[in-house]
Order: sequence, then C-alpha cells, then structure tokens
Amino acid sequence: MKIALCQLAATENKTDNLLRAKKMLETAKSQEAELAILPEMFCIKYKNELFGPASEPCEGGSCFKMLSDAAKELSMTIIGGSIPEKDGNHIYNTSMAFSKSGSFIGKYRKAHLFDVDLPGYRFCESDTITKGNNTPLIINEPIRTGIAICFDIRFPEWARMIMNEGCDLMVLPAAFARATGPRHWELLLRARALDNQLFVAAVAPATSESSYGHSMLVSPDGKVIADLGEEETVGVFDIPIEELDIMRSSIPIKTARRLDLYKL
Amino acid sequence: MKIALCQLAATENKTDNLLRAKKMLETAKSQEAELAILPEMFCIKYKNELFGPASEPCEGGSCFKMLSDAAKELSMTIIGGSIPEKDGNHIYNTSMAFSKSGSFIGKYRKAHLFDVDLPGYRFCESDTITKGNNTPLIINEPIRTGIAICFDIRFPEWARMIMNEGCDLMVLPAAFARATGPRHWELLLRARALDNQLFVAAVAPATSESSYGHSMLVSPDGKVIADLGEEETVGVFDIPIEELDIMRSSIPIKTARRLDLYKL
Repeated sequence: MKIALCQLAATENKTDNLLRAKKMLETAKSQEAELAILPEMFCIKYKNELFGPASEPCEGGSCFKMLSDAAKELSMTIIGGSIPEKDGNHIYNTSMAFSKSGSFIGKYRKAHLFDVDLPGYRFCESDTITKGNNTPLIINEPIRTGIAICFDIRFPEWARMIMNEGCDLMVLPAAFARATGPRHWELLLRARALDNQLFVAAVAPATSESSYGHSMLVSPDGKVIADLGEEETVGVFDIPIEELDIMRSSIPIKTARRLDLYKL
Repeated sequence: MKIALCQLAATENKTDNLLRAKKMLETAKSQEAELAILPEMFCIKYKNELFGPASEPCEGGSCFKMLSDAAKELSMTIIGGSIPEKDGNHIYNTSMAFSKSGSFIGKYRKAHLFDVDLPGYRFCESDTITKGNNTPLIINEPIRTGIAICFDIRFPEWARMIMNEGCDLMVLPAAFARATGPRHWELLLRARALDNQLFVAAVAPATSESSYGHSMLVSPDGKVIADLGEEETVGVFDIPIEELDIMRSSIPIKTARRLDLYKL
C-alpha cells in the first residue's frame, strides 16, 4: 500500500497553490499512491493575516471542488491537508477527506490551536482561527486512518484516541514552527507512532519562514521511514503494513493499559 | 538542585547489592545530591526466578531499613528503586521513598507489568509479580516528583497523570530490555519529558543480559542532559530548574489541553 506525502511550497497565491497541489496529486497517482496527503493550509501561506482573505466555506468552495474532482479523476483517496474554512463569522483550520470515488468523507477542525510565545517567535493562531470541537476524523480507506492537525501532535491524548479507534495510520497535516522543529518535530512524531503502534504520516509545506518542512513517515517501531527535507517534493512510499502485527503482538500495549486507574 | 542516578550493577547476591547500594548513596551525598535514585530491583538481578527468594515485606525488611537509615544518616531524599515486595501470597515490584529525615514517605507498586514476546526475547513479569492498583506515588521533596517504574513509561497516560499532579520531575527506576533499549528507551524518556514539560530521571542497573543500562536525565525540552552508558557508576547532575518556566510559558501545554474532548 503506497501513500504520497505532498510537500507543497504554499505561497500567498491561492489560485497557484491549488494548481500546484493538483499537479502533485497527479504525480502521486503516477507513482501508484492509493492515498495522497497535502499539508496544513496548503491553499495559502501559513500567516494569520492571510487566513481571512483565503477562507471559503467547506462544501462548495474552490478547495473542496479541486480535491473532490482530483480524487474522482485519479481514483485515489485524498486528505486535503487543511484550509481556512469560513463558517458564519468564524474561520476554522479544517482538513477534508475525499474518497477515491470523489465523495466527501468528512472534515476535521483543528482542536488545539497553536498559541505559543517562543524566544524570537510568537504566534497566536487563535487571533484568527476558532478551535474545533470534534475529535479526530476517522476514515476507512485505504486503511483505517485518524486525522489530526499540527499542534494536536503535542497532546498524547489525541493520538491515543486515534489508536483507540483501531487506526493503523495517523495523518497529520502540519506547518510546524522552525523555532521548535529541529528539537521537537521528529521526536513527537516518533513517540506517537511508537506509543500507539501505528504509522504516522506528517505532511508539511516545504521549508519557509512559516514551516519547518521535513514531512515524515514513521513506523510503529518509532523509526523514521522517510524525511522529505526542505524542498518542494512529492514522496511516495510503501507502507510495510506487516510491522503493525509484529509490534502489537510483541509488545501488547493496548491490552496492558490500566483503564481502571487512568484519570484525565 | 543536584540529583544522583545510581546505576548499580545488581547481582544475584542480595546482601552485597545492599552494601554497594549504600556506598553509592554515600557517593551521591559526597557530591552534594539532595535526591538519590536507585534502579528497579536494585536488591536483586532482574530475573523472575530470583524475585521470590529475594522478596521481603515493605516495612521492616532489610531494604527498608538500609534505605531509611541511609536517608537519615546522609540527610538526603532517597527513591529506593524497587524491590520484590512480599505481601501475603503476592509479590509486587515496589518502589519506596524516604525523606531526608529517614521517615518513610510512601510506596508505589508497578501497575503495568512487563509481559512481552519479542524476537529472541520473551519475558512475562506477571509469572511472578502481581500488578499494583495505585496511581504513581507523588512526593514533595526536594521538588514535587512523581514515581513510576520501567514499563509504565510506555503508557503516556501515566506520565500525564504525574504532570497533572503538578510535578516538576518524573522518576523512573527501570531495567529496560536490551532487545528494545536501543530503539525505544531514549525516545520514550524524551517524549514523556517534552509532552509533560518536566524533567525525567530514569535509573537502570548497569548493562547486563537483563538491563539495557543507560540511566538518563532528560530536560523538559526533550534534551538528554546525561546518559550514564553501560558501566556501574553514580552520576550527579544539577537540574536546570529554570527550564521548567521557560518551556511552560513558551508552549502552554497544560492550559491548551482539550479536557472537554478527551476520552480514555
């Protein structure tokens, strides 16, 4: 089973981003991907002042249409990174998933917003974005997959809920900060994969002032299978699905949990 | 604030292990440690067949007496790794904590037992050990600290509960398997420290067929401050306590949690 990580270099030109995203999806299909993943805010550069102007309703918007058409045309499951979704007076950071038939499977609105105050870098996503109030989106094609977005990765509860839903893959569209990327990005992705004994596919825009880049695929053993580096590129990789059973039978985490003792 | 990681090479000779543990605690104090930590099963080599013969009741046993006397004599907080604690027909893998006054603070019985079936290595701790039914032990000296044991580290729920108790340090006596040590040990310790924004001090016996060794101290930033390697040694390290505030104020994980959405 092959999946594609589309490390798009999102610019401030929404129309152009959509065109290039479409080309990357075609590249993914040409390399036999069954699932293609775009980055967080793939349709616009990750900047608070751009989210409003680039926002659009989920169903009926230009992103929805491009993704739906591409999924149908290419007969490939697509997780459409995320977009600034307009809903009344609110903007959400929303990921949409499309079946290979082109039908809309569902959406996920980022629940943990990226509000940080780091040395030399302050960003408050909640200045423009409203937080979602739903748990991760779970889809069943091509394998059972849970979808979260970027900052969600810092909360082990979120990945655990994806494991508890019986997922074999966690997909994370992201635009991780360069300020913390070198220290935290790989560590967080590997930890979630190992803890929850599933694959993690995290897809970021190419490296820029607002993205660390380094889209990654990580195995249930916590091993980095692929790191796409800094440049715009499409990486298509075979998922060694047999590793799931090996890990789960050798270290039976799920049954060893002490649900009788845990407290949130 | 200095803490000591006592990487004892536990043998099959309990009396000798206690003598050498005592010497290590003296070494810790001579280097101005305020807290000293021994490994999991510091009084006996980590083998199922040895746990029964080496077991003893918590209060009144030889381990309890040595630890209590040492804490008082050295005026140093001691987390006594763990011992096989006999209680009726049961044996628990139990950690005991002692105040620098020598008084017994409390105990923790390992709640997640190490039952694994890895390629080339099978171990079923529950063949001899009964699982504990309490949450991590929390102590207040010299800083607020949560105590868990070895396999507990694979369960993010456990470290999260320690964070939720307001701890600045997680202490993990351990005897991590060599089969998984190189791939998982450091990753798990770093992830728990980063996720929960606290220091992690993990203390293992020196490397042997039943221990990976590599006692570690990890910062709230997920950085390895110290790795004791394979040999028997005492490592005393200053805890850069100011890093707690830096991490917690720059990435406010605790307040950003979505307790309204999490499910166990």
